[in-house]
Amino acid sequence: MSVQQRPPESGSRVTIGDVARHAGVSPTTVSHVLSGKRLVGSATRERVAEAIEELGYRPNSAARQLRTKRSCAVAVLVPDLTNPFYSALTRGLADAVGGSEYGTYVCNTDGSLERERMFLHDVLDRGADGIVMASSANMPKERDLTPTRFGPPVVCIGEDYLELDADFVTTADRVGARAATAHLLARGTTRVAMIQGPPDGGVQRTLGYVDALNAAGHEPDPALQVHGDWTRPSGREAMRTLMAQRPRPDAVFCANDLMAIGAMDVIHELRLRVPDDVALVGFDDVDAATIVTPALTTVRNPAYDIGHEAGQLLLSRMRGEYSGPSRTVSLKCPLVERESG
Amino acid sequence: MSVQQRPPESGSRVTIGDVARHAGVSPTTVSHVLSGKRLVGSATRERVAEAIEELGYRPNSAARQLRTKRSCAVAVLVPDLTNPFYSALTRGLADAVGGSEYGTYVCNTDGSLERERMFLHDVLDRGADGIVMASSANMPKERDLTPTRFGPPVVCIGEDYLELDADFVTTADRVGARAATAHLLARGTTRVAMIQGPPDGGVQRTLGYVDALNAAGHEPDPALQVHGDWTRPSGREAMRTLMAQRPRPDAVFCANDLMAIGAMDVIHELRLRVPDDVALVGFDDVDAATIVTPALTTVRNPAYDIGHEAGQLLLSRMRGEYSGPSRTVSLKCPLVERESG
Repeated sequence: MSVQQRPPESGSRVTIGDVARHAGVSPTTVSHVLSGKRLVGSATRERVAEAIEELGYRPNSAARQLRTKRSCAVAVLVPDLTNPFYSALTRGLADAVGGSEYGTYVCNTDGSLERERMFLHDVLDRGADGIVMASSANMPKERDLTPTRFGPPVVCIGEDYLELDADFVTTADRVGARAATAHLLARGTTRVAMIQGPPDGGVQRTLGYVDALNAAGHEPDPALQVHGDWTRPSGREAMRTLMAQRPRPDAVFCANDLMAIGAMDVIHELRLRVPDDVALVGFDDVDAATIVTPALTTVRNPAYDIGHEAGQLLLSRMRGEYSGPSRTVSLKCPLVERESG
Repeated sequence: MSVQQRPPESGSRVTIGDVARHAGVSPTTVSHVLSGKRLVGSATRERVAEAIEELGYRPNSAARQLRTKRSCAVAVLVPDLTNPFYSALTRGLADAVGGSEYGTYVCNTDGSLERERMFLHDVLDRGADGIVMASSANMPKERDLTPTRFGPPVVCIGEDYLELDADFVTTADRVGARAATAHLLARGTTRVAMIQGPPDGGVQRTLGYVDALNAAGHEPDPALQVHGDWTRPSGREAMRTLMAQRPRPDAVFCANDLMAIGAMDVIHELRLRVPDDVALVGFDDVDAATIVTPALTTVRNPAYDIGHEAGQLLLSRMRGEYSGPSRTVSLKCPLVERESG
């Protein structure tokens, strides 16, 4: 099968006028056939259909957009699509709105507020029907939605520290972290440490850890709480600090999976066993959690569901089914029991 | 910081007429200020600028698109954005065209030719300036580009079995597979097996394996070639078949990393050592390759670069810098030496 050579000027486009000439009818007749709103004789309809087929005519979406004031596209701003969390979120959004004929337009901000603002202007210019801001999940305190104030509905991902006037989708990190820590305590462990995120990140996960200790009558010990920077090497470093203590911890809750995998590296280096000597639980449920040995018990961060929920919130506003005050939807983060703890 | 409540009817949009009324000038004057093509007094210009600012006016991209016949967007069709290969490819494309002000529109086809065709029609309707088809990498033989024949430039990802009239970006899989196998032979191994893809997939990788054996004077042994289906469990199953042979293989080249990780599972189960008893090399360089122990030696499948190159090919046509016959760009797949082989 071969494809006809495209014309040298790739911008050239078959118009209704071309179809009309080819079919030997007026452009108005072609419009009537296309819209289906006026009665057109079947022979004429057939001639127009043939001309459309032969010339490869397509209705012009820009013209339709001017008439309907809808671009039938939503935009999502993410830091980096190659981060599995954000690709899953984007897929969830696309699936939620795609069934309703909205396309998905993606912008990678690399966590830069300047790029976020630039893309925000860009997608507003394009007439996006809805916007999902998953771009600066770790810095909502700096977010500025001013550019969107006369525009389409916006859904933000993350905690709403600023009480912005936008819908939010967030996750019940504190509840998930509490369940993870309680799970470690239920093993009979007595010195449950935590490898935390950086001092300004993942605070809800730390609070959940403290909640569980308090509920079990344990005093949270500052010496058993060490910061990492979300990376595997930082998890190793934090774990070495923890394992130098006497008595050493017998369980560690890690604020994300990558740091938990770094902690597992150290336990193996020390020729100790997971979970018998030290039990481990992570947070996020990345693919790597099932690749390490033993497989990592963790708390699932439901990226796909977050995107899907954001899509539902947008749809309800884009369709005019909801025009009330801002809503925040919080999704549960379930514990996924595997082998490490 | 708070954001003003958006109007209940989210489709409403500030027009040039609104700006003109607010500034007390004619709509034509506003157009002149916006286009910058006619001289307008500085006091008037300032009044118009203030009105634009206060009302949150944005130029209408649909109207601009009708005038310029450009949507300033490229579309990429991928099977599934949550597959790291395709998210990296999409990011490479977005980075290549983003610097030139083209946005990126993403469609997940789930490998269905019907969905591919539906999305193709959709993005043509939207007036995409360029299209990247990475949607059915494993089935280009069924691809049909007919819908695009009067449309924008198209770049396909993968091998051009059909001599379609489109630009292609492909990878030198055969060369990469040959290097991987030669690397195993250079260790002094004498029975190098291969876990291959399904019979109709990854043929170039099998050819590269055979090339290396022939070059080293080894007769390729059919008993040392077993098929998998790209998954980790299928890698385990294939490896059990291989390890049941006497003498058993002392090295295995796997057509992708996931099957190599399955093979590694079996070597560990048998209490053998990687690479001393059996050396392993994979293909793709997924994140998991550095998470397994020992870290997997593999051949890098340059997903990001493939997307970036596709973007460059599109740009050259979209800008009218190139309008010649179809081109195929083949990217090298370098060997990444780690610990497994």
